Amino acid sequence: MPAKTLEQIVSLAKRRGFIFPSSDIYGGIGGFYDFGPLGVELKFNLKQAWWNDIVRMRDDVVGLNASIVMNPKVWESSGHVSGFSDPLVECKKCNQRFRADFLIAEASLGEAQVLDSTKLQQTVKELNLKCPNCGAKEWGDVRQFNLMFKTNVGPAEDTASVAYLRPETAAGIFVNFKNVLDTMRVRVPFGIAQIGKAFRNEVNPKDYIFRTREFEQMELEYFVKPGDDDKAFQEWIDLRFEWYEKIGLKNIRKFEQPKEELAHYSKGTTDIEYEFPFGWKEIEGIANRTDFDLKAHSKGSTQDLSYTDPEDPTNKFVPYVIEPSAGVDRILLAVLCDAYTEEDERVVLKLHPKLAPYKVAVFPLLKNKPELVEKARGIYTELKKYFNVAWDDRGNIGKRYFSQDEIGTPFCVTVDFDTLGEAGSDKKDTVTIRHRDSMKQERIAIADLKSFIEQSLSN
Amino acid sequence: MPAKTLEQIVSLAKRRGFIFPSSDIYGGIGGFYDFGPLGVELKFNLKQAWWNDIVRMRDDVVGLNASIVMNPKVWESSGHVSGFSDPLVECKKCNQRFRADFLIAEASLGEAQVLDSTKLQQTVKELNLKCPNCGAKEWGDVRQFNLMFKTNVGPAEDTASVAYLRPETAAGIFVNFKNVLDTMRVRVPFGIAQIGKAFRNEVNPKDYIFRTREFEQMELEYFVKPGDDDKAFQEWIDLRFEWYEKIGLKNIRKFEQPKEELAHYSKGTTDIEYEFPFGWKEIEGIANRTDFDLKAHSKGSTQDLSYTDPEDPTNKFVPYVIEPSAGVDRILLAVLCDAYTEEDERVVLKLHPKLAPYKVAVFPLLKNKPELVEKARGIYTELKKYFNVAWDDRGNIGKRYFSQDEIGTPFCVTVDFDTLGEAGSDKKDTVTIRHRDSMKQERIAIADLKSFIEQSLSN
Repeated sequence: MPAKTLEQIVSLAKRRGFIFPSSDIYGGIGGFYDFGPLGVELKFNLKQAWWNDIVRMRDDVVGLNASIVMNPKVWESSGHVSGFSDPLVECKKCNQRFRADFLIAEASLGEAQVLDSTKLQQTVKELNLKCPNCGAKEWGDVRQFNLMFKTNVGPAEDTASVAYLRPETAAGIFVNFKNVLDTMRVRVPFGIAQIGKAFRNEVNPKDYIFRTREFEQMELEYFVKPGDDDKAFQEWIDLRFEWYEKIGLKNIRKFEQPKEELAHYSKGTTDIEYEFPFGWKEIEGIANRTDFDLKAHSKGSTQDLSYTDPEDPTNKFVPYVIEPSAGVDRILLAVLCDAYTEEDERVVLKLHPKLAPYKVAVFPLLKNKPELVEKARGIYTELKKYFNVAWDDRGNIGKRYFSQDEIGTPFCVTVDFDTLGEAGSDKKDTVTIRHRDSMKQERIAIADLKSFIEQSLSN
Repeated sequence: MPAKTLEQIVSLAKRRGFIFPSSDIYGGIGGFYDFGPLGVELKFNLKQAWWNDIVRMRDDVVGLNASIVMNPKVWESSGHVSGFSDPLVECKKCNQRFRADFLIAEASLGEAQVLDSTKLQQTVKELNLKCPNCGAKEWGDVRQFNLMFKTNVGPAEDTASVAYLRPETAAGIFVNFKNVLDTMRVRVPFGIAQIGKAFRNEVNPKDYIFRTREFEQMELEYFVKPGDDDKAFQEWIDLRFEWYEKIGLKNIRKFEQPKEELAHYSKGTTDIEYEFPFGWKEIEGIANRTDFDLKAHSKGSTQDLSYTDPEDPTNKFVPYVIEPSAGVDRILLAVLCDAYTEEDERVVLKLHPKLAPYKVAVFPLLKNKPELVEKARGIYTELKKYFNVAWDDRGNIGKRYFSQDEIGTPFCVTVDFDTLGEAGSDKKDTVTIRHRDSMKQERIAIADLKSFIEQSLSN
């Protein structure tokens, strides 16, 4: 089997309606992508699988959906206004700007290091770096560039109306902590979960939908009593790793961030990484953020964000929080890379049936036999009540299998003359069901199709 | 029954975790709202009901999810950069800005009229209007204010990098028309549907979540052959009206916009209106937009956006488009208003079961009888595999009914001693099911609960 390249994935995703560059007919816009008809379904299934496990099946987690534009004070308290920035350096000749740490990392073939502006400035000079755009070697000062997209709310364009597109969904949860406490019957430990878009003005968006400027996050903030945090942290690392296994993702590993590299508020962070064609990269981070966020927002808003045990009013504390934070687009890319398989004469997306855009495709053996078409339409219409179902009556069966394999449809059902019970066939009201991965075919009663497919989804 | 007021809805929505002001602990931010734990579920159910009917159950519609930030040329071609604006007038004394047409409408107690800036300017003077903020009567010139939120993409803050938050989702569909044609096996007539956020920098956001600055749209662009457009237009008006009836919305009507008030590209527009506490207002507009959009984007992008009939290559045309465009938040507010009922000693949300955040609540008759609790937990856990289920074991049954009525849970199930088959009861393994609207109670076998609830959802 040839190694998978990112180009193969990009090509399939565009060819089959999963992912298009945003504003494609206008030449695109760097760092933005659109999800086509099949991409929407795949993404929906992914988010649904997360929401089911994290919110719906648990008794201790509730959902939330906060706005993208929030009061700008939120980002002052969280530290994003002052600290959420990348170090930029401008070529004095062509005026293009680059991430100083990336330039250095590329020149020294290593990972980007976290250095302060002065140290970066020195290193750019020491390495005598060339501008990747024009080749010049004259650089301006390294400046911190805030990654939040800025806009103005209201009819006046002055500083009073500056607002930001949220760079993460988590803050929407923290500022609603009190509202949720006051309105839902939650008791620590409990969690608040959110799926939604976030925006970062990345200087160099790259690796397809891995590092984009508009992306979707699935974040859970799980609030615990201080002292119970280490145990909860471990539990969530395990639960989240198992979740990836459940949706069929292979080539994943845990990476525990070294203590000395942790952010100042973090007691511990473990990433879940996937092996992309461009290397091992984080698709989710699980962090023990202590009481940093609630305390910061309590201070910034002057509101009491502590929790009082209803059984024991003397037991009052600001909860610690464990945060499993996942990137939907990154997971979707991991799922596509993982599922993509070239074998013999075909390309197969070996997606878990739960994630597949279509669960089953229904074919009449021949397009020009009305009795076959009618029978197949009946099955199609019945199954459509429960699942996303594809229909194909073009060309020969082999071509239809080929087409469904490429988009990951786990089962193909063919209605033939036996199905109609012609010539006294004892196979009346049965169909051929063909399995995507093994390519095996078996005969199954039409009446059993629904439960057969349901079974595959629950595994 | 007392008339419903918007205040009653706002109060219930906040008290029970449906809707919170955005950034609440920071004093909010005008025109932005968050959806709490129950609001998220209600909104999800609404969107799901739309997606099912519009995309999943039809053979001729595919889905899409485009980015919020697009290439700015998109908005030049669509006419939004030059024409998507409101007339603003500034009070010379306090420097507050107001919508000139709204000021005039309020003063003359009529609907806001579409007038040009000069005419508005005259009218403001003629009516000798007072500033609603400071009472002064000195006004500046009426100026057109573009409603698109502006931001900058990339590390340079110059005009080259200006971009906008989309003011509608429709454009994302038009610019993907060719990608969808090229990758999916669609044939005219067919549609592309999208659900997603859009942003408008409304000068005076008002009426709670009816007119906000960040909102969600559900839009379908249904492409037809020119000449088939009138029939398709009528069909979609009827289909969309029926959809509202199907989700249980009453107090709706159709409003056909007078020909003389139509936008220049529209051959016809019919609104679906709901009677809110603040009057009859549009929740969806169905428009025959002709070939205006595809032609505008074809011109702007210099790409061919015509369609060629695969059966007859000489039959080439730019499709007309019928656009049913609905506001999710507006519908959600209409649903809440419609469902809100005060009767006797209770508040009931008479939501269609399909929309209700929880489909059923399960109670043990007494909290301190482990055998009751265990049996009830078993039912709860089993039903949770299929539905969103609430659990309550506090206080007495009456209080629990009261609490579930307020959030619209259609059924409450109570496990009592008969359920356990105690004292030789012939009601072993049955429970009491209580109906939200009629408050009637009946006995039902535990084994029948799942299909009973499923039945209520399919109506």
